[in-house]
Amino acid sequence: MVISEHGGDIYSREISLDFSANLNPSGMPEGVKTALKNSVSEWENYPDPLCRKLCKALSEYENFPIGNIVCGNGAADLIYRLVKAVNPKKVIVTAPTFSEYEKALSENGTEILHYYLSEKYDFAIDKDILDVIDSSADMIFLCNPNNPTGQLVPKDILKAVAERCLENDTILVCDECFLPFVTDGKSKSIRHCINKNVVILNAFTKIYSMAGLRLGYALFGSAELTKSVQKTGQYWSVSTPAQLGGIAALNEKNYIDNTVQLVNKEREFLTSELRKFGFRVFESEANFILFRCDMLLDELLLREKIAIRNCSNYEGLSDGYFRIAVRNHEENAMLITAIGRCL
Amino acid sequence: MVISEHGGDIYSREISLDFSANLNPSGMPEGVKTALKNSVSEWENYPDPLCRKLCKALSEYENFPIGNIVCGNGAADLIYRLVKAVNPKKVIVTAPTFSEYEKALSENGTEILHYYLSEKYDFAIDKDILDVIDSSADMIFLCNPNNPTGQLVPKDILKAVAERCLENDTILVCDECFLPFVTDGKSKSIRHCINKNVVILNAFTKIYSMAGLRLGYALFGSAELTKSVQKTGQYWSVSTPAQLGGIAALNEKNYIDNTVQLVNKEREFLTSELRKFGFRVFESEANFILFRCDMLLDELLLREKIAIRNCSNYEGLSDGYFRIAVRNHEENAMLITAIGRCL
Repeated sequence: MVISEHGGDIYSREISLDFSANLNPSGMPEGVKTALKNSVSEWENYPDPLCRKLCKALSEYENFPIGNIVCGNGAADLIYRLVKAVNPKKVIVTAPTFSEYEKALSENGTEILHYYLSEKYDFAIDKDILDVIDSSADMIFLCNPNNPTGQLVPKDILKAVAERCLENDTILVCDECFLPFVTDGKSKSIRHCINKNVVILNAFTKIYSMAGLRLGYALFGSAELTKSVQKTGQYWSVSTPAQLGGIAALNEKNYIDNTVQLVNKEREFLTSELRKFGFRVFESEANFILFRCDMLLDELLLREKIAIRNCSNYEGLSDGYFRIAVRNHEENAMLITAIGRCL
Repeated sequence: MVISEHGGDIYSREISLDFSANLNPSGMPEGVKTALKNSVSEWENYPDPLCRKLCKALSEYENFPIGNIVCGNGAADLIYRLVKAVNPKKVIVTAPTFSEYEKALSENGTEILHYYLSEKYDFAIDKDILDVIDSSADMIFLCNPNNPTGQLVPKDILKAVAERCLENDTILVCDECFLPFVTDGKSKSIRHCINKNVVILNAFTKIYSMAGLRLGYALFGSAELTKSVQKTGQYWSVSTPAQLGGIAALNEKNYIDNTVQLVNKEREFLTSELRKFGFRVFESEANFILFRCDMLLDELLLREKIAIRNCSNYEGLSDGYFRIAVRNHEENAMLITAIGRCL
């Protein structure tokens, strides 16, 4: 069986319930859908290469200087452009984590130093991460909350890492794509200890369930690095539908609060039910859950057209680790029932 | 005055008639618009990273092996991925031509050898291009028809270049994004002398007026290079609307034939009218026209909210060169009248 490189593969097999992609269970906001349907004629022209209207809306939404924001064709696009612009020689990457950091770095010929997270502590990041950040590290990637573990970086460690990176002239890339799903997420952002070496990655992909549209953005502590990433890569990386969809998404007022409530409640339900099966379930604060199970659970569930993420291809994990997205209650209940049938 | 890096800048100033972007004057086909409006809900999920349905449709449309096709976020995305995958040390680029080749190569640290086209011969490519292709050249970019000159590469030269590239193990990238606008364009493609070193770039951007959607594709003579470009860059570069819009566009039966007829007739009209003003107008077979004019015509026309492309930032050109797209008759007539007022 071929394990997909990432979740969300609903194209190479028939899937009726997808728990492998970490998208908002509420789906794309209706306001975004309407804005898209009403603007199709505008997509004839080239997109604004600088995403001016979207950046203005983001600047207001994030309360962040417009000159320090760059939009990309998904956060993934920004990872590649950032690596290209900085051209780091050596980079620290936690393991397990989202694999596109490592792929972008490998393409660039960059040396990768893995900081392995310990399963013993539910893969939580520890203060000893500070020991590996020295002046030989040009960059470090932190995913907060981490994919696939759902663990947040504690505030004191975040602050200490930001300071250590500034001292050593190490670029700190903090991927906060899943932070909007976390209770009181904004207070847990690296925003509160930003300095010129910090880059924050974010995306509309997951929180607004706009994955097919491809839209991410980066907030930079340095205006100079902003310019350098802006001009790296092709001139028109962000499509017009993505730009217009993004602007519409930022107008959704209660959507994120409602999402956080739903995800919290359902994550508790799923965690509790999975533990009843005897699985080791790792503590998560995000909209997905990592757990251990000694069966080929993904293959068994595929027979019922349910997709979950087999995590054996994550650096730092092996066979028997699976990740599921938190979906709505009806779907989550169906998953639990289906798992029950597999046992 | 700031000259935009490319045409199509309708965002930094108020434009009511845009002759600076070379898009199909007929606009996006209605079938594409309908397909887009009806599929918004599908854009919630991640796109198919391999664009399987679109590649299948392209394989049938182009009568080309599906395993030798890669889709990208516009042809521009494919230029960067190709340069990354091949990592050439030295590359031949004609001048003047589309500037993204050179930008992608510069980012990669590649040495660029310019082959300057001669204004004396309307910037037509000459057989002496063969003399510069030797084993030290890892790659050559040919734009056919060339942007901004509108000149086609003669068939005998195309064939000789393809053979010479094969002998010297030089990758020949033939950008045919404007070939669908040319009378009997298919017969003028490098398709007829393809070999393992040939890569053909094409796009939906211009011919289907889908520039805001970002969709290009490449046809490879080599299955090995196909795989290598496919896996370069992020996992999900092509959005779902672009994939679905592309499939719908390939179903448009008479759209391209009608476009070619319109463009031919209107290019003749514009060429003749521009010559009446005493401008030197270069022969074009594409949907745009390059001409010389000793006034700051772009600035004068901007006062009437009409955009034309100032070509002074093209390598190999200087002040006084302008490019206009061929649009529909009413618009073309308005442009000619407006130019008359400027003189």
